[in-house]
Amino acid sequence: MAIQPISWSPTGAVRILDQRALPSSVITRDLETADAVADAIRTLQVRGAPLIGIAAAMGLVAAMRDQRAAPQPEFLQRVQQLAGLLGTARPTAVNLRWALDRMVRVAEATPGDSEALWERLRAEATAIWDEDRDMCRRIGEHGLRVLKDGANVLTHCNTGALATGGIGTALAPIYLAHEQGRQVHVYVDETRPLLQGSRLTAWELMQAGVSCTLITDGTAAALMQQGKVDVVLVGADRICANGDFANKIGTYGLAVLAQHHAVPFYCAAPWSTVDATLARGNLIPIEQRAAAEVTVVAGRPIAPDGMTALNPAFDVTPAGYVKGFITDHGIVQPPFRS
Amino acid sequence: MAIQPISWSPTGAVRILDQRALPSSVITRDLETADAVADAIRTLQVRGAPLIGIAAAMGLVAAMRDQRAAPQPEFLQRVQQLAGLLGTARPTAVNLRWALDRMVRVAEATPGDSEALWERLRAEATAIWDEDRDMCRRIGEHGLRVLKDGANVLTHCNTGALATGGIGTALAPIYLAHEQGRQVHVYVDETRPLLQGSRLTAWELMQAGVSCTLITDGTAAALMQQGKVDVVLVGADRICANGDFANKIGTYGLAVLAQHHAVPFYCAAPWSTVDATLARGNLIPIEQRAAAEVTVVAGRPIAPDGMTALNPAFDVTPAGYVKGFITDHGIVQPPFRS
Repeated sequence: MAIQPISWSPTGAVRILDQRALPSSVITRDLETADAVADAIRTLQVRGAPLIGIAAAMGLVAAMRDQRAAPQPEFLQRVQQLAGLLGTARPTAVNLRWALDRMVRVAEATPGDSEALWERLRAEATAIWDEDRDMCRRIGEHGLRVLKDGANVLTHCNTGALATGGIGTALAPIYLAHEQGRQVHVYVDETRPLLQGSRLTAWELMQAGVSCTLITDGTAAALMQQGKVDVVLVGADRICANGDFANKIGTYGLAVLAQHHAVPFYCAAPWSTVDATLARGNLIPIEQRAAAEVTVVAGRPIAPDGMTALNPAFDVTPAGYVKGFITDHGIVQPPFRS
Repeated sequence: MAIQPISWSPTGAVRILDQRALPSSVITRDLETADAVADAIRTLQVRGAPLIGIAAAMGLVAAMRDQRAAPQPEFLQRVQQLAGLLGTARPTAVNLRWALDRMVRVAEATPGDSEALWERLRAEATAIWDEDRDMCRRIGEHGLRVLKDGANVLTHCNTGALATGGIGTALAPIYLAHEQGRQVHVYVDETRPLLQGSRLTAWELMQAGVSCTLITDGTAAALMQQGKVDVVLVGADRICANGDFANKIGTYGLAVLAQHHAVPFYCAAPWSTVDATLARGNLIPIEQRAAAEVTVVAGRPIAPDGMTALNPAFDVTPAGYVKGFITDHGIVQPPFRS
C-alpha cells in the first residue's frame, strides 16, 4: 500500500493527509501543536478509529517538543493536560483514549529528565503506529478465510489504509486476498453523510486495483435480496465486553439486513478497540455531529433553509448479529477482556 | 396545499415546477411538445408515479394542439405514436402507461372530427388530474387511522404534493392528521442518490408546518432500534397482483428493518398503481439510471474519476412485509385485480 495517511514531518510535527479533500485533492498538513491535532481529529482531517489513536499519540510527542528543557514534574503535568485535551476530540472511538492512556502511563513510569521522557514518548508513539501496522496485517491474515475466491464483499465507511497505520481493518483481508490473486469484488457503501465510502474507500481500492462498485447506502438491501453479497465486513470504533460494538451510522441496519438474508456479517478491528470496561453497547457514548453535515454536500445546501437534521455519527450493533470478530488475535467471540 | 407541481399554461402547454431545482430555486417551465414532456419526465423535472401519469396525459393534449385541423385518422395515428413515445420515458411506474392507455382508448372511442377528439382528450387529461386529487384525499382519509396522535412516522423519497395531482399518497394521511390538529412528527429519509427526501419532502412538510427531521438513509435502523419510529409510510411505483411492489431504492431495506423491529409498514398509492397483469414483483422492470447520479452531488464529484457505480432507481418489496396498502378504496390486502 503506497497510501500513507500519517508520518513525522522533518521538524517532528505530525504530517497528515487531509482526508476531507480526498479524492479530488491530495493535501498534506503539518500539525505542530496539540490543539492543531485535536482540531484535525474533530474535523475529520484525520479519521478512522485506529488512526486517530496513532495521531493523538504522535500529536502529544509533537506538542511536547518544546518542553524538553522543562523540569520533569512540569513536563509530566503538561503531558497529562494535553492528553486530556486530545482525548476529548471525539467521544466514541476508544482507540483515542487507549493510545493516550498508554502514553501517559509510559511517561509516568519513565525515570530521568524531561528529555528522557520525551524520547520515551516518541518511541512509544512510534511503537503504537508500528504495532497497528502489524495488527492490520494479522487481521488481514485471519480474515482471509472468510473470503472465498470469487467473493462479493459489502463494506461500509472506510476501514482501510486511510483509517489505520497499515492496510486497514475490514479492508485488510481484501487487500491480502487481492495480493494473493483471489478474485474479490467489493460493493462500497457511499456512507452518508460524509461519504467516506465514495471518497476514501473507493479511492483506496481503485489505487490498489481491487475490483469495486459504489452504491448508495439504500441499495445494500436490494443487493442482498438478489444474492449478490456473500459477506459483509465492517470496522468498529469501540467493542464492549459482551461484543456489542459502535461503528459508523448505518452499520446496525446492515447487520439486521445481513442476518435477514443469511449473509455472514463480520466486524474487523485491532484488539485496542475492545473496551472491556463497558459491559454493553448502550453504555457507549455516541457522538452527535452538526446537522450541516447532512444538509450541505460539497459546500452546497441540499435541504431547505432551517431544516432540522439528526446526525449521529455512529450506531450500536448488538453482538448477536456478528458471526465473528476478526482481530489480530484471530477470529474471536465475546465475552472480551481488554 | 399551495404547492402546484403541474398546470396548463395560458397557451395550453404543460406548465411544470422543475423539481431538479428545488428547494434552492422555484423554476417553472412550459413544455410545448411531447418530446419536451418526455424529456422532463426522463430527467426528473417532473417525477412521482401519479404525477408522471398526469404529465404524460397533459403532454399528449399539448402536443396535439396543432393537429386539430388534421384528418381524423391522422390525428388518431399521431396520438398513438406520441403515447408510445411518452410511455417509454420511464419504465417502472405503471401510472405513466395507465394514463396513456386511457387517453388512447378514449381517443379511439370518440366519434367526430379531430377537434372533437382533441377536446375529449383535454377533458380526459383534466379528469385524470382531478381524479388523482380526489384519490389523494381518500388515501389520506383512509390512512388517518394508522396515525395516532403523537405518532412518529418514517417516510422515504417524496410522496406528497410534488409527486401527485393532490396532497400526495404516503404524505396524504400526514397532511390530514396535521390539519385536524393531531401531533405528528415525520422522520424524512434524505433518499440518495437524488435526495427527493431532503430536497422535496422536507420542503413540502416545512411549507405545511408539519414537524419533521431529516436523516440520512442509514440512520433509519438506529431510530427503529431506539423505538423512535411508530409507523413507516411509503409510496409505490407499481403494485403487482400478489402485492409485491416497486418503490424508490431503499424501500425494501426499510421494510425488512420495520418487520425486524415490529414497526408497521404501509404502502400508500392510488388504485392506478396496481398492475394486475404482473403476477409477482420480479416481473417489474427496474430502471437503471446513470452512475453519475451517485458519483456527482450538486454538480461536484464525490467519488474518484472513473469509479463504477450501480444506480437502480427502484427496488421490490415483497407483499409479506406490508401491513396494508392504503389506497383510495381503503386499506386493502392482496391479491389485487386492476
